Amino acid sequence: MAEDLNETEEEALDGNRIDAVLDAVGAADRPALDALMEPLHAADIADLLEQIGPSDRNALLALWSHEIDGEILSEISDAIREEVIEALPPEVLAEAVRDLETDDVVDILEDLEEPQQELILDALADADRVAVEQAMSYPEYSAGRLMQREVVVAPEHWTVGEAIDFLRGAEHLPDQFYHVILVDPKMEPKGYVTLGRVLSSRRDMPLREIEEDSFRTIEATEPEADVAYMFNQYHLISCPVVDASDRLVGVITIDDAMNVLDEEHQEDMLRLAGVGDESSISDRVLETTRQRLPWLFVNLLTAILASMVIAQFENAIAQLVALAVLMPIVASMGGNAATQSLTVAVRALATRDLTGANVVRVIWRETAVGLLNGVFFAVVMGLVSWFWFGDQVLGLVIAAAMVVNLVVAGMAGILVPVMMERAGVDPALASGTFVTTVTDVVGFFVFLGLAAVVLL
Amino acid sequence: MAEDLNETEEEALDGNRIDAVLDAVGAADRPALDALMEPLHAADIADLLEQIGPSDRNALLALWSHEIDGEILSEISDAIREEVIEALPPEVLAEAVRDLETDDVVDILEDLEEPQQELILDALADADRVAVEQAMSYPEYSAGRLMQREVVVAPEHWTVGEAIDFLRGAEHLPDQFYHVILVDPKMEPKGYVTLGRVLSSRRDMPLREIEEDSFRTIEATEPEADVAYMFNQYHLISCPVVDASDRLVGVITIDDAMNVLDEEHQEDMLRLAGVGDESSISDRVLETTRQRLPWLFVNLLTAILASMVIAQFENAIAQLVALAVLMPIVASMGGNAATQSLTVAVRALATRDLTGANVVRVIWRETAVGLLNGVFFAVVMGLVSWFWFGDQVLGLVIAAAMVVNLVVAGMAGILVPVMMERAGVDPALASGTFVTTVTDVVGFFVFLGLAAVVLL
Repeated sequence: MAEDLNETEEEALDGNRIDAVLDAVGAADRPALDALMEPLHAADIADLLEQIGPSDRNALLALWSHEIDGEILSEISDAIREEVIEALPPEVLAEAVRDLETDDVVDILEDLEEPQQELILDALADADRVAVEQAMSYPEYSAGRLMQREVVVAPEHWTVGEAIDFLRGAEHLPDQFYHVILVDPKMEPKGYVTLGRVLSSRRDMPLREIEEDSFRTIEATEPEADVAYMFNQYHLISCPVVDASDRLVGVITIDDAMNVLDEEHQEDMLRLAGVGDESSISDRVLETTRQRLPWLFVNLLTAILASMVIAQFENAIAQLVALAVLMPIVASMGGNAATQSLTVAVRALATRDLTGANVVRVIWRETAVGLLNGVFFAVVMGLVSWFWFGDQVLGLVIAAAMVVNLVVAGMAGILVPVMMERAGVDPALASGTFVTTVTDVVGFFVFLGLAAVVLL
Repeated sequence: MAEDLNETEEEALDGNRIDAVLDAVGAADRPALDALMEPLHAADIADLLEQIGPSDRNALLALWSHEIDGEILSEISDAIREEVIEALPPEVLAEAVRDLETDDVVDILEDLEEPQQELILDALADADRVAVEQAMSYPEYSAGRLMQREVVVAPEHWTVGEAIDFLRGAEHLPDQFYHVILVDPKMEPKGYVTLGRVLSSRRDMPLREIEEDSFRTIEATEPEADVAYMFNQYHLISCPVVDASDRLVGVITIDDAMNVLDEEHQEDMLRLAGVGDESSISDRVLETTRQRLPWLFVNLLTAILASMVIAQFENAIAQLVALAVLMPIVASMGGNAATQSLTVAVRALATRDLTGANVVRVIWRETAVGLLNGVFFAVVMGLVSWFWFGDQVLGLVIAAAMVVNLVVAGMAGILVPVMMERAGVDPALASGTFVTTVTDVVGFFVFLGLAAVVLL
């Protein structure tokens, strides 16, 4: 059978294959297309659909849409999923959706518009439809939406043998399960046993005696970010989900948690850069422009604010144009130092390494780092300015401004995200723009102000 | 037994508990300290040690170091691990290290200095020491270092019943395993079966008939980033690791892959901000200053470059100071737009969504987005400048400069990381600084140059 396996082994997606697929699509060569697509993993087919252009995608779907299954559908990025769903014949969509576990259906539904949601709900078997609608009744981005509802449970007084007999007799088991959850008569989870332990223990071993220390539960209403944190922090593989009265309602597995962790990362990174959350490389030009424009607009307002500071010193600049030449350096160094400190802070808040216990010490640390770097760059930039413009006092002015601005940068870089977090706002949310506004305004004001006082 | 479980249930780490721990340490109250620490998970104890200050940490370790076990040691961040290891009595360290699976020992060893590595290697049992040294012979950050060497295998012709009997009879099984790997007589992995399938199938079922589609292997020398990508892309739970001749040498489980994914993300985020890779909130002031200074220095050089561009237009600025007031706006908008496009590109490269297949289209898209946003902000900023300085032509000049700089920003934001990737350099590595240098230089040059030509 080793030969069979090799024949069906999956092949990787690479540029050559994509070119070959596009050639086959161009020639409307169905057999060639099937041969190229068949060995690809669903996740790679989804990537392929995302990476080719809209017109190629349409042509490919026109030829090949009946091969789209549930797995491909759930791998496809939100940016093009609506487009793909619209291209599917209703019977293909229905079969694709019926393939999926209910948690995957929920994941797809979440990001669709009303009419497409209906299309998919209608395609489901009645029991699944009820399950999906129940899941959708949990808050967005909650554990309840993430969990799968099929669970493998055993009464807590069972032995290994009873569990094995039950599993062998079970008509339908979830695709993925790693623990047998022990429940009491009220369906409250009381512990769990890994399948490895079940398999390696004697039949008369009580399940309670081989349960795992790592056992913990999560409430269905908890945000999915907390779920991801819990899996990562406590190295969980699966975690039972309970309702408000502690009854078992589902289970979350680590692959879903890993997915959430990945999305949270993406969100942090894009938000820090002032990019809309949903941004993906497959978005269209207009959609992308629309997502990025608002934060550029905020940046424009803050840049104008900084310019208004400069405008206060027009006379000084007119008398000494060197000020205009040097002032962006002070602002730029402040902005960079602030971004460094901000990024470390946002990351530490996300991983819960920055808490009430160490926030004061970290603020001091950032201030001290700003002071040390400030002194270093003050000396460097003071000397550079002195030699460049032959003006010792100008060197002293820029040195002083550099120290002040880097200290402010360190403080702003940590205080802005911490205060946003306390106020219940995501600290990654464009705090970059706010922080660099502070360093721009302070940088221009201190440098030009000092110059106006000392030099003129 | 449900009562037992509740008594030993873990409690969460919060600010109150940290305060209470510090109080107990201050009072040198061992019993109170034990009572507070005992219900904490190892990962939370590690967080506690990271979040308290160095002197509190010393005091806590002086009282409590004999309770440090292997799990705590492997959870502790690199930033303070050396310090903690030095505080441990040799016999405590030896016992802690002997507790651990070899992959966790390797993870600890990697970041230690030579003398501490020896300390830990000496503490290991001989067989473990050999295993750890073998793992350390694989390249840094490779699959070989990440894998656990204990594997659960079965000859590919076995049945479910044979596998269960073997597992029951096995003397030692890994803490975590999710699949039985099917091997041929040369120990080449040929497939795997989930434990769930083993448990729910009849005893006479051949293992080959219930093997999973998801099966794939990874070579021991592959970089761990590729491992993380593979787990995330293909939803793997565990993956056999093979040597150059395809023989099974170990297995990687999803929790390790999740950890790598998390670290890779941290690296991208910090590198984008120009922060040294190892940066953590627990680093000391001098260490942090040393990490951040080099990139600030690079930024200083690029800022001086931008200032040299301004210096070419000293005459123009002396004649029309409004130019000095407005020029930072052009540069700032370009820098922000470039950072948006750069961040999306770096993320897409990391997730392999930006490839040869779509790079040309994405470059066009970024350029088009830059053009659209450029036109929008050109109109806004043209009007603002006109009303602010009562100068129509100045408005036209800044509008033109805005369009040019935002188009350049879009192009630089995608081209710089793509070219870095092609050159084999991590595209996150301070590409922010390079990209904003481009937009600063272009912004100042186009705005001031146009003004000099048109206005004076």
